[in-house]
Amino acid sequence: MTVRDTPSHMPNRYELYYWPGIQGRGEFVRLALEDAAAPYVDVARLPASKGGGVEKLLAVMKSAPSPAPFAPPFLKSGTLIVGQTANILAYLGPRIGLVPKAEAKRVLAHALALTIADLVAEVHDTHHPISLNQYYEDQKREARKRAEAFVADRIPKFLGYFNRELERSTGSYMLGRAVSYVDLSLFQIVDGLDYAFPRAMKRNARKIRALRALHDRVADRPNIAAYLASPRRIPFNEQGIFRRYPELDE
Amino acid sequence: MTVRDTPSHMPNRYELYYWPGIQGRGEFVRLALEDAAAPYVDVARLPASKGGGVEKLLAVMKSAPSPAPFAPPFLKSGTLIVGQTANILAYLGPRIGLVPKAEAKRVLAHALALTIADLVAEVHDTHHPISLNQYYEDQKREARKRAEAFVADRIPKFLGYFNRELERSTGSYMLGRAVSYVDLSLFQIVDGLDYAFPRAMKRNARKIRALRALHDRVADRPNIAAYLASPRRIPFNEQGIFRRYPELDE
Repeated sequence: MTVRDTPSHMPNRYELYYWPGIQGRGEFVRLALEDAAAPYVDVARLPASKGGGVEKLLAVMKSAPSPAPFAPPFLKSGTLIVGQTANILAYLGPRIGLVPKAEAKRVLAHALALTIADLVAEVHDTHHPISLNQYYEDQKREARKRAEAFVADRIPKFLGYFNRELERSTGSYMLGRAVSYVDLSLFQIVDGLDYAFPRAMKRNARKIRALRALHDRVADRPNIAAYLASPRRIPFNEQGIFRRYPELDE
Repeated sequence: MTVRDTPSHMPNRYELYYWPGIQGRGEFVRLALEDAAAPYVDVARLPASKGGGVEKLLAVMKSAPSPAPFAPPFLKSGTLIVGQTANILAYLGPRIGLVPKAEAKRVLAHALALTIADLVAEVHDTHHPISLNQYYEDQKREARKRAEAFVADRIPKFLGYFNRELERSTGSYMLGRAVSYVDLSLFQIVDGLDYAFPRAMKRNARKIRALRALHDRVADRPNIAAYLASPRRIPFNEQGIFRRYPELDE
């Protein structure tokens, strides 16, 4: 059920490699592949008996030609192994019709994707401000301080920026009249922040109306709506990027 | 002296916009432009009387067509305004001969640049683990904890990765026999970590020999050597990304 019903000999079937069990950074890629109805396999979510699992992910990463990806997610497209979320989206965008073909537009889309990636890293740091290798429980005190600053300064700054640029757009999407992977990623940002920081998002509601409207418009896209209702959409949980720790949402 | 001696009517004179007074993220762009001897102006470092200064930077950012960049550095190339360091390098790379033209190589180079960007953000967080809007002095206690984890886990992980991929390369540069902007950025990473974490770097010396050799090879490139000896190279200082706070380098 994590595999689309496409023949396996299809040459351009993409292979996505990401940790199973969380949306995480892989979700930005999933949303693009799903919206475009692109043929793909979410490899690590397949059982090992079908050539999947974390073992497979690690094996592919280890045997990748140099330079190998630093970490999941990575995408296998033919023999090319593409690392880094925003890089994957920049690679896929023109191939699956989710970014204009003109270079200038692609460059602007990518700048937005990298700003989204910066925000995602900051969201992660709200629950892991000291070390990735320690449990949340062991850095809870610092997490409260970091989250307080994130809610006070960073949510308004990032979402204010995205909202303003949306308002300035010549169409109802970030790059104009056509949807792009940037809009899908912004849907995920709003969805994730709604989950992790519901109170902060409510407080910012009036300032992010354009962004909220974009979120809703993306959620209504047929392929996205079908995806969100399917078991392929992993629910938010406390192992991913967006975690609901009420003590961090003051 | 921050302006190269090129006629101002030259159509492809790049304009770099970044905070004056620090190397910061702008330095990765400067190194590429300098190595390629590309015509550019470091706008915010010009005096206001010559159309420069921070005021100019802010004015250009504010009046940029949508989507405008989120933050400096950004590069103006004709009418296009390119935000995000790694995006700027990906844009410049093929134009100034600092990345192979083949798409697969460009994609792999960019994945490395984004991994470098992730490392840079983590370096910054060693002195600002709680908030960008607070002084280092007000988050020193948390900075010590974050830096301890960074030195113990992240320096070995990131530099170990870059060193391993260099060893696996088919040439003496990251992407093979030709230098690319990735190599210049890795020079800056090693140079910056030497400044900020000299003890940690010494302790890791045996594990990063290929990376050290690359650093030295880049430093010896004629245009880079000339740049490093010039007043255009801002010295490291405690306002940038790489800061020498001995208490963080245990």
